[in-house]
Amino acid sequence: MSKTLRIGLLGLGVVGGGVVQVLAKEKEKLQKQTGVAISIDKALVRPGEDKSAMAAKYGFTLTTDFDALVEDESLDVIIELIGKVHPAKEFIEAALRHGKHVVTANKDLIAQHGVSLNALAKENKVSLFYEASVAGGIPILRTLTNNYLADEITDVMGIVNGTTNYMLTKMFEEHLSYQAALEKAQALGFAESDPTNDVDGIDAAYKMVILSQFAYGMDVTMDDLEIEGIRSLTELDVYAAKELGYEIKLIGRAKKYDQQIAVSVGPTLVHASHPIASIKNEFNGIFIESSGIHQSMFYGPGAGALPTATSVLSDVVAIAKNKALKLEAPLFNQFSLPTALANDEQQLSRYYLALNVKDYEQLEPIFLKYTIKVERQLKKDAHLFVICEPISKAKLKEFTQKLTNYARIERVMKVIGA
Amino acid sequence: MSKTLRIGLLGLGVVGGGVVQVLAKEKEKLQKQTGVAISIDKALVRPGEDKSAMAAKYGFTLTTDFDALVEDESLDVIIELIGKVHPAKEFIEAALRHGKHVVTANKDLIAQHGVSLNALAKENKVSLFYEASVAGGIPILRTLTNNYLADEITDVMGIVNGTTNYMLTKMFEEHLSYQAALEKAQALGFAESDPTNDVDGIDAAYKMVILSQFAYGMDVTMDDLEIEGIRSLTELDVYAAKELGYEIKLIGRAKKYDQQIAVSVGPTLVHASHPIASIKNEFNGIFIESSGIHQSMFYGPGAGALPTATSVLSDVVAIAKNKALKLEAPLFNQFSLPTALANDEQQLSRYYLALNVKDYEQLEPIFLKYTIKVERQLKKDAHLFVICEPISKAKLKEFTQKLTNYARIERVMKVIGA
Repeated sequence: MSKTLRIGLLGLGVVGGGVVQVLAKEKEKLQKQTGVAISIDKALVRPGEDKSAMAAKYGFTLTTDFDALVEDESLDVIIELIGKVHPAKEFIEAALRHGKHVVTANKDLIAQHGVSLNALAKENKVSLFYEASVAGGIPILRTLTNNYLADEITDVMGIVNGTTNYMLTKMFEEHLSYQAALEKAQALGFAESDPTNDVDGIDAAYKMVILSQFAYGMDVTMDDLEIEGIRSLTELDVYAAKELGYEIKLIGRAKKYDQQIAVSVGPTLVHASHPIASIKNEFNGIFIESSGIHQSMFYGPGAGALPTATSVLSDVVAIAKNKALKLEAPLFNQFSLPTALANDEQQLSRYYLALNVKDYEQLEPIFLKYTIKVERQLKKDAHLFVICEPISKAKLKEFTQKLTNYARIERVMKVIGA
Repeated sequence: MSKTLRIGLLGLGVVGGGVVQVLAKEKEKLQKQTGVAISIDKALVRPGEDKSAMAAKYGFTLTTDFDALVEDESLDVIIELIGKVHPAKEFIEAALRHGKHVVTANKDLIAQHGVSLNALAKENKVSLFYEASVAGGIPILRTLTNNYLADEITDVMGIVNGTTNYMLTKMFEEHLSYQAALEKAQALGFAESDPTNDVDGIDAAYKMVILSQFAYGMDVTMDDLEIEGIRSLTELDVYAAKELGYEIKLIGRAKKYDQQIAVSVGPTLVHASHPIASIKNEFNGIFIESSGIHQSMFYGPGAGALPTATSVLSDVVAIAKNKALKLEAPLFNQFSLPTALANDEQQLSRYYLALNVKDYEQLEPIFLKYTIKVERQLKKDAHLFVICEPISKAKLKEFTQKLTNYARIERVMKVIGA
């Protein structure tokens, strides 16, 4: 009598195990609310991987043969949780071609191949959902599609990488060095042994590509982003930021200038009074400015087995509801505009400059000549730290080039708040 | 060729005007994304109210005759923005009976009559949406229905009244008295000349009734809530809270104990490190604990013409999408369980007690006798401020009754965080 949604699960690692566990716990509630029974029928494991105890406990079968799994006509949905681009991409493509809905948490893949995968999903009249790909436990993507359509988003600022936020929190609150903070993050399992993707901002950039698509309807590629990590931040940067009343956060930002957008990832001075400064440790947060709601923020865990599994299941629930309503599979995000990127003249920002100064006297005329207005400054030994009023990125480039004759520029960061 | 969704708007005050303005701005985008043209055709105004300039500018007709408006068969949706219970309730009932979808921002009405109005909507196969009724600009209700179905919510803590949050922020940051803070809020238009509903927690309680329904699927009534306002808070309370490392917030809370819930509104000590303490001034925030996502928070404006108008329009967009998909009108929240309220033995909490002490010596044995463990304490003149480890509400009652023989109890508040 009642409908059943049958799932094939690719990957039984921590998140996959979480999906199995959360679904078992919430099964009855979900069936009651959606009118559809959700059942994990099969799971793909690696050769030699023993998950027989889990399979027996939760009543699904194991296979190492993806081709057989994807050809199983009884399966309605494939959940992909193996991560990385290959073979996840090929698996998802095969699943979509076989008419199966796909749910994935794979940000690397969606950021790089989302456009073609969404097109393939549309062509095959199935859904491709990936709520968990951005900020694991924060329901941000579906909220953007459902609740901001009557609004115009003008700025998205995200702390979307938990590892670096944890490290920066420790550098600020416990005065750890970058290296000590990284080791602590690794010891706690927040950072991998090769932390490149996190500390160099790549992971955050993947998420900003996806967020930009939902916030502005525009497809940007990784090449369109300016990406800077936190690897070279020093205790002096932390000292200066603190003295000036700011924290340093790795901010992914997608900002609209007129009708164009600029997307970037980089360490940023955030004033202590700004809501996004309150996001500490491994937590994520996304702060949105828009013409209607004005300011809103979404806070939650960026990773973790249960939060990510819960997000994955919210996608499955959406598919179950659509099935119950006999709906044609909708695109995850239907907001679509031609991509238009802002140029360097359009991009206005306040900037923080850390300078190693040979001669203070000589600096002032340069600031005057380029009409750079200083909001706040701090001197320490040979260092001069300056926060200046908004200037264009083009002007910043010109100015800093000139400045190198008089000072060594140790760091340039954008500034948010107060 | 293209479908049109025709709206009758009840009330052209600040929010109504905002709806008109935001819709005009986003009209094209909405039509492109939903496939439905959204048009405000008629607006109900009070006799003598002159809105002819707005009507002419945006191309709709004005009427003072509700009966004629509701009988207009060309209208698909009624947006109710006149507020208060009567005649809003009768208007909405008539609209639902005439087969019109209804969108409202009216928290008083939904909190008190939501159950019967939802039943009437279901009976007439139309939608009744009220996203703007809780925390104006924060898209919390639709997020709860869409993203938490695969999760189990165990605690909802909300700063859901902007007026009192503004006042408490001023009392904390600028050391204003309650009275001075109220006057400042009134001067800025955050508080009405009769602030009763805000400062006595009634407004927050309405919102908690609605949030409880979405978070737990349970219908609670205002009588089920324990409600306390901020009217009697003194500078001494502020001093003690600060010294102990806390802020005082008016917290609406719907917490699950086992399978029962308790819903309350009251001034609460929130540790400065807790995310909800970062919600300042007139902003609202809702912090959710759940077994899957674990901790999440939604932050934004609680009121204001444009945020509220944007929320109202997100409901209209949902109706437009359903119309485009030819869907039967769904209930706003389909999660439904029998209401089960926690008793006093089940409700555990840490408490803050402010005592005016006759004899410190005599107090200690009472704490020992009732096995009340003190986490933190502070003495000032004859006052003793104590934060104790979790005890049941039943035990608190018994203990404080006994305590009155040895000390005057000046205040009891719940404690959240650290």
